[in-house]
Amino acid sequence: LTGRVDSAGPLITLLTDFGLVDPYVAEMKGAILTVCPEARIVDVTHGVDKYDVGMGAFLLAEAASFFPEGTVHVGVVDPGVGSSRRPMVVKARRGLFVGPDNGLLIPAAQTSGIVTVHEITNRFMMLPDVSSTFHGRDIFAPTAAHLACGHLPEECGPKVTDYVKSPYGESVVEGKWAVCRVLHVDGFGNIVTNLTRADLNKLHLTENRKIILTLNGRRLTTKITGTFSDLRKGEIGLILGSHGFYEIVCREASAGKRLRIKRGTVVRVSG
Amino acid sequence: LTGRVDSAGPLITLLTDFGLVDPYVAEMKGAILTVCPEARIVDVTHGVDKYDVGMGAFLLAEAASFFPEGTVHVGVVDPGVGSSRRPMVVKARRGLFVGPDNGLLIPAAQTSGIVTVHEITNRFMMLPDVSSTFHGRDIFAPTAAHLACGHLPEECGPKVTDYVKSPYGESVVEGKWAVCRVLHVDGFGNIVTNLTRADLNKLHLTENRKIILTLNGRRLTTKITGTFSDLRKGEIGLILGSHGFYEIVCREASAGKRLRIKRGTVVRVSG
Amino acid sequence: LTGRVDSAGPLITLLTDFGLVDPYVAEMKGAILTVCPEARIVDVTHGVDKYDVGMGAFLLAEAASFFPEGTVHVGVVDPGVGSSRRPMVVKARRGLFVGPDNGLLIPAAQTSGIVTVHEITNRFMMLPDVSSTFHGRDIFAPTAAHLACGHLPEECGPKVTDYVKSPYGESVVEGKWAVCRVLHVDGFGNIVTNLTRADLNKLHLTENRKIILTLNGRRLTTKITGTFSDLRKGEIGLILGSHGFYEIVCREASAGKRLRIKRGTVVRVSG
Repeated sequence: LTGRVDSAGPLITLLTDFGLVDPYVAEMKGAILTVCPEARIVDVTHGVDKYDVGMGAFLLAEAASFFPEGTVHVGVVDPGVGSSRRPMVVKARRGLFVGPDNGLLIPAAQTSGIVTVHEITNRFMMLPDVSSTFHGRDIFAPTAAHLACGHLPEECGPKVTDYVKSPYGESVVEGKWAVCRVLHVDGFGNIVTNLTRADLNKLHLTENRKIILTLNGRRLTTKITGTFSDLRKGEIGLILGSHGFYEIVCREASAGKRLRIKRGTVVRVSG
Repeated sequence: LTGRVDSAGPLITLLTDFGLVDPYVAEMKGAILTVCPEARIVDVTHGVDKYDVGMGAFLLAEAASFFPEGTVHVGVVDPGVGSSRRPMVVKARRGLFVGPDNGLLIPAAQTSGIVTVHEITNRFMMLPDVSSTFHGRDIFAPTAAHLACGHLPEECGPKVTDYVKSPYGESVVEGKWAVCRVLHVDGFGNIVTNLTRADLNKLHLTENRKIILTLNGRRLTTKITGTFSDLRKGEIGLILGSHGFYEIVCREASAGKRLRIKRGTVVRVSG
Repeated sequence: LTGRVDSAGPLITLLTDFGLVDPYVAEMKGAILTVCPEARIVDVTHGVDKYDVGMGAFLLAEAASFFPEGTVHVGVVDPGVGSSRRPMVVKARRGLFVGPDNGLLIPAAQTSGIVTVHEITNRFMMLPDVSSTFHGRDIFAPTAAHLACGHLPEECGPKVTDYVKSPYGESVVEGKWAVCRVLHVDGFGNIVTNLTRADLNKLHLTENRKIILTLNGRRLTTKITGTFSDLRKGEIGLILGSHGFYEIVCREASAGKRLRIKRGTVVRVSG
C-alpha cells in the first residue's frame, strides 16, 4: 500500500508542537495543497508540548489507527531540526508516516505494521527552498503531498534500518505489584498509564476489585471499575480507557490535578 | 429531509468539550471518514467547558442555523457516558443532530424544527467495539457518518418522546424590570444574555435610551446602543448581538472581566 | 486572476481574532458553505491578539504566500466594525483578500502583488441580514464564497485607492548599528524582527560572527548562526528565520521569556 487518490481525495493528517496561534500549520497546509490540490487534511493535534517527542508519539499512535487505510500521517516534533537527524518516511501496512528520524513516528507505525523506512533525500519531494528551521513546511508537508498524490516511498530516498526506535517503557509485574508509567494526562485530567489488562490478569485483579495504588510517595485505596458512572462524584478509580491502557480517573474532576501527576511518573498497582 | 450526498460531499459538524490537545477529536474524524469517505467535517468548537451541557447547547444552537440544509451536527458534552443515558439522533427540518440524550442537542434542533427523535440502538451504526468512555468516537461519529452517507434516522433505533428537554431559563418582564440571565461570556468578554428586543419593547426601551442594569449587587447606568463605535473606549453598553440576544459589552475591553460576570448570573434591566 | 472553481474545489483561508471557543468561526464557515458548497476552507489562525491589526497583518502575510494561486484569503481583525470603516476586497496577482479597510490585508496583498482594491457595497455579496457587530459572517464570508465560486472583485463595488496602508516600520542601518523592531514573538518564544540579510550585509556581518544586541536597556553578546543545533541548550543566537527575517532564538527554550520581549520592542544590532 502507498498513497493513492480515491474519488474523495487522499487523506493527510498533521500532528505538531506548533500550537494554533502561529501560521506554521497553515503554511504546511498551503504547501500540501500546492503540491496535491485534491488532498484533504485533518489535524490530529498541534498541542503537543514543545519538543516532547514522547508525548507526540503517544498521541499519534492513539489517533492513527482510527483513520482509513492509505492515510498519510505527518508528525513534526523536531528539536533536532537543522542538525544531522534525517527526514524519513515509514511505509506501513495501513498507511504512511512522514517526519523526523527521532522516534516520533515509530509507535504509530508499529501499530500499523512497519514494512520499510526510507530517508527523504530526493529534492523533488521538497519545496524549492529548504530552510534550516522549518522542515515541516519545506520537506515533510510536500513529501506527504507527493505520496498522497501517488508517488512511492521508494522514490523519497534510500532505505534505512538504523532509525531511532521509540523509548517507551513497558509495564512490568514484580511479585504482587504491577509497575507502570504515566504516558499522558489528558484534558479531562485522566491519567493514562501503560498498564494493560494482561498485567492485571497476572495479579488476578478483575473489575470491581479493591486495589492499592502508590504514586508520588502516596498510597491510595481505590477500585477497578467499568464506567465513570460506577464512581461517585469526585471518587478516584481505575478504568480501562478506550485505547487499551488503564487510566486513573476521577468522576467529573481532574485526577491529574488531584494527584499532582505528570507524564513519566511511576505508578504501582496491587490487590 | 435526511442526510444526503451532494456533489461536494455531505457536511458533518462537531462540537465537544474535548479541547484540541488530546487526539479525541481526530479519532472521531478518522471514524467518520472510515465510514463515509466523502464526508466534509467542520469544527463548531471543542472548547466547551468540561461537562457544561448548557454552554454546549447554547453554542451549538448559535452555530447550527448558519449551516446548509441537510448538515449532520454531532454534539458530545456527555458527563453521563457509560450510564443508562441514551444515545440519540434528532431529525429536524433543516438537519440532523446526533449525541447524548441530555438536552445538549435540543435548543439547536428546536430552532431547526424537531420532526422525530430516535434512540440509537442498531449496532450497525456503531464501531465494532464500543467503549464505555468514548461514545463520541464509537457511536456518535459513525452514526453521523452513516446518516451523512444516506442512511435514515429511522434505521438508528426506536422513536422516543421522553427525551431530556433543555432547561434554558427564559427572560421575564416584572413591572418596570426585565429579568434575564447570562448565557455565555464570549472570548471578547461580551456578556451574552437571554434578553430580547421583545422584552425591551414591553418596557418601551429603545436604542440610545439610558438604562439601569443591576447585577452581582451592582447598579450601572448605561445605554442601549446600535454599534460598538457609538461607545467611547472602555465604555459599557447594551447592544443587540448578532444572535438576537442583547449583550453587555465594553468597547475594546472585556465587559466580563470588568463586571466579573459568569454564566448564569441574573441581570435586571430598567429604564 | 479571480476566484475560480477547480476540480478539487476553490480554497478559502480564514484569519481572525475570534479564538476557538466561540462559535463565530464556525458561523463564518457555515455562511461560506451555504453560498459556495464546494469551497474548501483552511484556518490560518484564530489566535490573533484581540484587535491587534498589526499582528494579524504579519501572520496573514507570512502564511498567504504558501497557498496556491487563486486562493481567497479572509482576514477579520476588526475593531472598527459597525463604524464607517469600509469592507473591501483586494485583487492581487496570486489571490484575493477580503476584510476590513484597516491595513490588515495590505502586507499580504503587497507580497502577492496588488492589482485593484474594491469596496464591498453590493448587497448581493452579503447575507440577507447584516448585523452591526459581525461583518466576518455577514459580509466577508459570503463575499469570499461568491468570489471563490466565480464572481469578480469588480462586482463587489466601486474601486477605491484611498485605503488604509499598513504602518509596518522598516529596519534601518545607522552607522555601525542596524535598528529593527520585534514583529512577533511566536509560540516557541522565537523573537521575529524585521531585520534582513541586506541590513547585515551593510554592516559586513556574516554567519558565525559575534554580534552585540541591545534591547530593553540590556546589552547581549551573541552570534549569528545557521541552525539551532549550532547553539548549546539555552544559548541565545540570531538566526535567519524561514520567512526571510532574522529571529532572536534560544535553543530549546523561549527567547521571548528570557529577554521579556514584546511585539514592537526596538532592537539594535552591531558587530
